[in-house]
Amino acid sequence: MSSLGELTEAVREFARAREWERFHTPKNLAMALAGEVGELLAELQWLTPEQASAVMSDPEIGPRVRAEIGDVTIYLVRLADVLGIDLVTAAADKLEEAGRRYTVEAARGSAGKIAG
Amino acid sequence: MSSLGELTEAVREFARAREWERFHTPKNLAMALAGEVGELLAELQWLTPEQASAVMSDPEIGPRVRAEIGDVTIYLVRLADVLGIDLVTAAADKLEEAGRRYTVEAARGSAGKIAG
Amino acid sequence: MSSLGELTEAVREFARAREWERFHTPKNLAMALAGEVGELLAELQWLTPEQASAVMSDPEIGPRVRAEIGDVTIYLVRLADVLGIDLVTAAADKLEEAGRRYTVEAARGSAGKIAG
Amino acid sequence: MSSLGELTEAVREFARAREWERFHTPKNLAMALAGEVGELLAELQWLTPEQASAVMSDPEIGPRVRAEIGDVTIYLVRLADVLGIDLVTAAADKLEEAGRRYTVEAARGSAGKIAG
Repeated sequence: MSSLGELTEAVREFARAREWERFHTPKNLAMALAGEVGELLAELQWLTPEQASAVMSDPEIGPRVRAEIGDVTIYLVRLADVLGIDLVTAAADKLEEAGRRYTVEAARGSAGKIAG
Repeated sequence: MSSLGELTEAVREFARAREWERFHTPKNLAMALAGEVGELLAELQWLTPEQASAVMSDPEIGPRVRAEIGDVTIYLVRLADVLGIDLVTAAADKLEEAGRRYTVEAARGSAGKIAG
Repeated sequence: MSSLGELTEAVREFARAREWERFHTPKNLAMALAGEVGELLAELQWLTPEQASAVMSDPEIGPRVRAEIGDVTIYLVRLADVLGIDLVTAAADKLEEAGRRYTVEAARGSAGKIAG
Repeated sequence: MSSLGELTEAVREFARAREWERFHTPKNLAMALAGEVGELLAELQWLTPEQASAVMSDPEIGPRVRAEIGDVTIYLVRLADVLGIDLVTAAADKLEEAGRRYTVEAARGSAGKIAG
């Protein structure tokens, strides 16, 4: 699978084939997304900043982080699909808005906040 | 902007131009992701299931939900970039694994769980 | 154990005895709190509103929900202790502020938002 | 207000007086809890570990962190009340269980994980 569109269709079909659409309401999917982000945080929370920066080299934790990122992506894609939102366009619009709010001159070095 | 790859580069350049890379550590970005998912939940939490299903038609809440989905996507893309993870491949791998765990025959109707 | 104060001391001693204080930084504990809230959401996310309202009667899910509430409380108490915040006073102050913002007359029936 | 019990009753009455009980379902309250934890994370996410450790001394961020801790507590207390769970007992039971799993001898220095 190479594109977000193909992934969206695969997740949609996965749910359809198992008759899970009725569980995939916006609120339920938002909760599932939060649950998976929680699992991702749990993999990183006790690591020092140095350990976290090198986490993908760790033979045990690296695959688990990748798995949780995968789970988060699945539910984000599914939620966007159910709501009829194009993820890339929604993100690009927010990035453009952030660019106007945090100009390069004003923002250099002072924070890391893109969205919000 | 039309693809996840283009978005990834745009977010990377956004951070680079403002010298924000040092803030964009894996732990910080995971926290930011959780923060934006929290803002998304806050838009949906008091809605009835029916109101939530129609939320994108609401002239006030619809745009806010789309904005939060955009923010979540920005941070997920940035975190994956910093960790060197391909989002679509990571998700596709988890979906395939879930397909083996929740076969269509066994899973019909009983739950909504894809990832986990 | 009967009081929040006793729980706070028990969690503090638990960490001290295992020499875990260096892991219990504010950011790490906030991430741990988010992780446990995620686990709590995972127990409820696929339930219908009716099933969720009766969840504590379910012999399997009820105990798991109680366990996750316990975990969330442990980390909230630990984080507040490390930051030097009194949980009850901080909450009471916010409740009072919310009472001024959402007067009984204006707020009847229109939302469920206390904090925010 | 000095005790968790008094806070629980105050939050209960706050909701009752505004006829908000119908919004305060377990799923909605769990989402609200996740939303407030997200706001707490947002206050800490870009701080260095050193800045985060001293955050309560910061005249701007300190009060905001205390406010978010207050909000998290309000919704945790309300959710526990609606579910009929005693927070301190649930936490104490998990702490005891963790004590058996992570004995002092085995656990010294190796992690920070109490709950989970």
